[in-house]
Amino acid sequence: MASDALVIFTPSGKRGRFAVGTPVLTAARQLGVDLDSVCGGRGICSKCQVSPGVGAFPKHGVTVAADALSDWNAVEQRYKDKRGMLDGRRLGCQAKVMGDVVIDVPPESQLHRQVVRKAASARVVQMDPATRLYYVEVAEPDMHEPSGDLERLALALKDQWQIEAIEAGPSVLRKLQPVLRKGKWSVTAAVFRDHHGGAAKLLDVFPGFYDGPLAGLAIDLGSTTIAAHLCDLRDGRVLASGGVMNPQIRFGEDLMSRVSYAMMNPGGDVEMTASVRDALNALAISVAAEAVIDPRAIMETVVVCNPVMHHLFLGIDPVELGQAPFALATSSSLSLPARDLGLSAINAEARLYTLPCIAGHVGADAAAVALSEAPQLRDELVLIVDVGTNAEILLGNKKRVLACSSPTGPAFEGAQISSGQRAAPGAIERIEIDPETKEPRFRVIGSDLWSDEPGFAEATAHTGITGICGSGIIEAVAELRMAGIVDAAGLMGAPAQTGTERSVAEGRTYSYLIHDGSAQNGPRITVTQGDIRAIQLAKSALYAGARLLMDEMGVDHIDHVVLAGAFGAHISAKHAMVLGMIPDCPLDNVTSAGNAAGTGARIALCNIAARAGIEAQVKQIHKVETAIEPRFQEHFVNASAMPHAVDSFPHLSTVLTLPQVNHNMGSSGDGGGRRRRR
Amino acid sequence: MASDALVIFTPSGKRGRFAVGTPVLTAARQLGVDLDSVCGGRGICSKCQVSPGVGAFPKHGVTVAADALSDWNAVEQRYKDKRGMLDGRRLGCQAKVMGDVVIDVPPESQLHRQVVRKAASARVVQMDPATRLYYVEVAEPDMHEPSGDLERLALALKDQWQIEAIEAGPSVLRKLQPVLRKGKWSVTAAVFRDHHGGAAKLLDVFPGFYDGPLAGLAIDLGSTTIAAHLCDLRDGRVLASGGVMNPQIRFGEDLMSRVSYAMMNPGGDVEMTASVRDALNALAISVAAEAVIDPRAIMETVVVCNPVMHHLFLGIDPVELGQAPFALATSSSLSLPARDLGLSAINAEARLYTLPCIAGHVGADAAAVALSEAPQLRDELVLIVDVGTNAEILLGNKKRVLACSSPTGPAFEGAQISSGQRAAPGAIERIEIDPETKEPRFRVIGSDLWSDEPGFAEATAHTGITGICGSGIIEAVAELRMAGIVDAAGLMGAPAQTGTERSVAEGRTYSYLIHDGSAQNGPRITVTQGDIRAIQLAKSALYAGARLLMDEMGVDHIDHVVLAGAFGAHISAKHAMVLGMIPDCPLDNVTSAGNAAGTGARIALCNIAARAGIEAQVKQIHKVETAIEPRFQEHFVNASAMPHAVDSFPHLSTVLTLPQVNHNMGSSGDGGGRRRRR
Repeated sequence: MASDALVIFTPSGKRGRFAVGTPVLTAARQLGVDLDSVCGGRGICSKCQVSPGVGAFPKHGVTVAADALSDWNAVEQRYKDKRGMLDGRRLGCQAKVMGDVVIDVPPESQLHRQVVRKAASARVVQMDPATRLYYVEVAEPDMHEPSGDLERLALALKDQWQIEAIEAGPSVLRKLQPVLRKGKWSVTAAVFRDHHGGAAKLLDVFPGFYDGPLAGLAIDLGSTTIAAHLCDLRDGRVLASGGVMNPQIRFGEDLMSRVSYAMMNPGGDVEMTASVRDALNALAISVAAEAVIDPRAIMETVVVCNPVMHHLFLGIDPVELGQAPFALATSSSLSLPARDLGLSAINAEARLYTLPCIAGHVGADAAAVALSEAPQLRDELVLIVDVGTNAEILLGNKKRVLACSSPTGPAFEGAQISSGQRAAPGAIERIEIDPETKEPRFRVIGSDLWSDEPGFAEATAHTGITGICGSGIIEAVAELRMAGIVDAAGLMGAPAQTGTERSVAEGRTYSYLIHDGSAQNGPRITVTQGDIRAIQLAKSALYAGARLLMDEMGVDHIDHVVLAGAFGAHISAKHAMVLGMIPDCPLDNVTSAGNAAGTGARIALCNIAARAGIEAQVKQIHKVETAIEPRFQEHFVNASAMPHAVDSFPHLSTVLTLPQVNHNMGSSGDGGGRRRRR
Repeated sequence: MASDALVIFTPSGKRGRFAVGTPVLTAARQLGVDLDSVCGGRGICSKCQVSPGVGAFPKHGVTVAADALSDWNAVEQRYKDKRGMLDGRRLGCQAKVMGDVVIDVPPESQLHRQVVRKAASARVVQMDPATRLYYVEVAEPDMHEPSGDLERLALALKDQWQIEAIEAGPSVLRKLQPVLRKGKWSVTAAVFRDHHGGAAKLLDVFPGFYDGPLAGLAIDLGSTTIAAHLCDLRDGRVLASGGVMNPQIRFGEDLMSRVSYAMMNPGGDVEMTASVRDALNALAISVAAEAVIDPRAIMETVVVCNPVMHHLFLGIDPVELGQAPFALATSSSLSLPARDLGLSAINAEARLYTLPCIAGHVGADAAAVALSEAPQLRDELVLIVDVGTNAEILLGNKKRVLACSSPTGPAFEGAQISSGQRAAPGAIERIEIDPETKEPRFRVIGSDLWSDEPGFAEATAHTGITGICGSGIIEAVAELRMAGIVDAAGLMGAPAQTGTERSVAEGRTYSYLIHDGSAQNGPRITVTQGDIRAIQLAKSALYAGARLLMDEMGVDHIDHVVLAGAFGAHISAKHAMVLGMIPDCPLDNVTSAGNAAGTGARIALCNIAARAGIEAQVKQIHKVETAIEPRFQEHFVNASAMPHAVDSFPHLSTVLTLPQVNHNMGSSGDGGGRRRRR
């Protein structure tokens, strides 16, 4: 028998010769193969499971004998009996190399395993979280060589895991001694690595071998809604998701009204800070409950938000963000104890990371979108719009990335809309208006049936039909425009102009009746002229921001549009373009990224290198301040028309032709406009 | 005129040639001369004042012309008009080198100036505090190149003061924007440097040029008393000092009874933690009030204490310190935000530093004594005892330093003594007993008169004569021994044995009446047999600890004794040696260091290098665990006699001979013992 053997790991293809008797885990480590281990090779954690191959591997030029690895041993048997193990699997720390062998590392045994982000996306998140579990065996105290328990734990982490230095906060110091004794000097440590090279931080300790839960919370702190994903920091799985309304709404619907509140009311910013922190604590508790874990298992949070929310969350009066030159108190990323920001519901030593802000109006949420969508990696020019109460807009490709934000207001989220409501069961989310009959049909959240399909009434009886959500109002306005009920200037026609009695007078303007629930004691749901104006203002701001970036880039068309934001997934390219929310481009090239800011937060939560990456990248992004660009006003006015007063929409024209109506002319009869393809 | 000139600085003697027109401050900086500046050479702070010389300087080989510096300028005149300046002084940043010149840097202009610690000591503290003020001019925000105010401040600190990176906590982030604007983009930053090379921390900002107060609090957290010195971090002056009783006394007089309280009462440690933190907050407020500064001007605290107090202050259950192997939760120094330990009365970003602990029974207070007294620098062997409820004992010289602690109990502090009280007006602090008449005379705190001097009654009328303080009881017992009223075994004689009616029977033992205040409605002040026993126990523990260190060192005598601790200054070498508190040595070599632990805390507060120094030194100190040394018990028993049952006291014998009495023999008459020299 040879004294050494060839070991080949798949899928990496890494190979090397090792002395007979070398454990597979040791071989993997020496070759830099990505093989997980929490217990450090003690046969406890089973993270290092491998699948050895047997037989001929012509590709690798070896034939593997049945006895290429040492025999199945008692440690492996004990683990299998206790927790189960797939057939053919071995524990990498127990199985020793006895002859040439090919060893496959299954995905779940890879430390840097990739997690598919969502079915709709090819993007993956590579796991490399800042916080990890490390099992260690700690030397017992010796009064003849006195040293602290923490110092001996630090020594164990250094010897067994090459963690150079460690700091511990008060709460972990408090629990350290009982945990070490309960674990009989074996503990699992949750250790946070600082991506700027600061000392590692001991966040928690558990007696003996502990395999989770170990959770992180990715928070997209929006002006209107707060969304959170609770992620398992071991494998990146989303354990639970949740959202709440931002309680600051009671101080002001949009950002500027909150800034005003802070300016007008002494202590107003402190009130708003407290309310958002309370909401985050409640949200943490609720998602932890949904995942059936202790909220104290949450070791890290990543928060992304716009600059005003950023300042209010950090406890900074946002007043400077309300006036030129829109100076941020701090623009850098922040990494600090979550308790310092009042997040008391989670682990007392939990860390908080905020992504950097790009500019006074372009926040950490825009940075998160940049992290998620990576425009700097694209060949073609992509416009990324994150639609919310404030819209973040990125335009770029490999050569250059620009960013701005635009104050769209909350109309896109269904706020300040007469029948608007948040996306909840009972809300109209889809709507179609027949161009001939001008009759609507719609779907509500909670049922897959259209309103003209059999069984619809029964299916919606328990939720009722309660209002229109953000995506519903956009679709409704676009359909009204497509049906000629609304003209290019946004004016709703009289019945005589539109040809339908659903146009109903309300004072000096007209509304369109979508659903009259009054017979069932439900609301009358209409789209009013005021609703149209609100959507026009919002979409003009969005479009004008995009155009400013195109000016700066020196282009008059774009290749791709990515609609981000919670409801981006629900808007069709056609409807967005009919409204003129976004510039013209091939309709197939308009895609949805879902909550890209939230995804960016998740990436930063699960991959520490992404933090350093986005911090560097943000410095490369060129910022455009919409509030002071003279052309913003011009772009805004031109964008008021649907789709646009000046810009052409050649790709949209290939799909449909919008009715050429003008309800301001007092013209009669032909309110339905010209026929169009749908 | 030459294009350059020779500049010589005194007292450093540093010299160099500089181009004509170079400001003196610039020349000083380039030569590494220790010349202060807070405003960075803008003529605002006046810290860089220098005294130029004129005439012949044969020692330096130059003759200085009257016009060797540029003319007195308007900036200097404005400063002098506003704040005053000594004649002959110049501002180093304004005066320019025009010819060869000798420039003296007066002590108050030296950044690393030395502060004489106390009149009684030759030791000085060199100022090099972790926290300093830096005046900077910050770039205004530019919305075309957006960056945070903090980032621009950091850039200014880097450009103007070479501070590489800075971190800011929530409270300073909150005040940053208004302060920058109030100061019109000029601010003074209080910046903390981490002595382990971590990022500098921005603790506070002040609009414009701010010259203090900038304070630090050195705290000696004892089992019985808490003492604090409020120091000016700019020049090391003690602004105020204060002390309070440790409120944990209600949970137990000594350390082990507090550990027991924690063991017996769930949540007991939390109660004790809260009580000591409350006391520290109150003490901070009170010393700040005494110094007439805002407590928020306190930017740093240094705490020294024994291991049990250390754990209780940090919020760690001290239960492990109550049983072998006496494992500390952490032994290293700690540097963390003071708010994390509940110190809310001081600056919200204030830092807290604790010195390292030496062992489970030898704490950060012993480390502080080592820092203050520096036994490792001595040629001769020195024994340093810090007398308190727990005594810290160090023995060493240049070759080796040993340390232990010994549980003396609170008797030395006047507790558990029948007429004991804390050192306050009205307490007997000195006592003499006439060897012939056996009559006492005494002094009380608040008067310099002895009780047998005219006017004593009037002088003490307002305080009364209320009890005996710690140093008083030690002196009283020693005097009783010297007068033969107490024998070597510690037994108080009957009147027939002592020859004085001041020996009064109390049950089966005798007490000695010092003062009967009952006629004035005051207390009867006596020394009881129980008091003698308490002092014997305390001094035996102290002596036994010292002897253990001598055993370990392999010596049977020592060269020097330093008595540290709050009352060390009040005990005479003779009395201490008569009692046998300390081993024999030349009486002139027994000196007092005052509160050496508190001084060590002050040194660590004022000099950042001292922190790294003591952290390294503590690792070199050999620890002896008294609780498990078999010989401790033997030493303890032998030390019960006064001065000692076995060890000889040759140096003491040259000064006095103690009466050879034995009150246990029922012997009569000759209770006064033999005559002795005093």
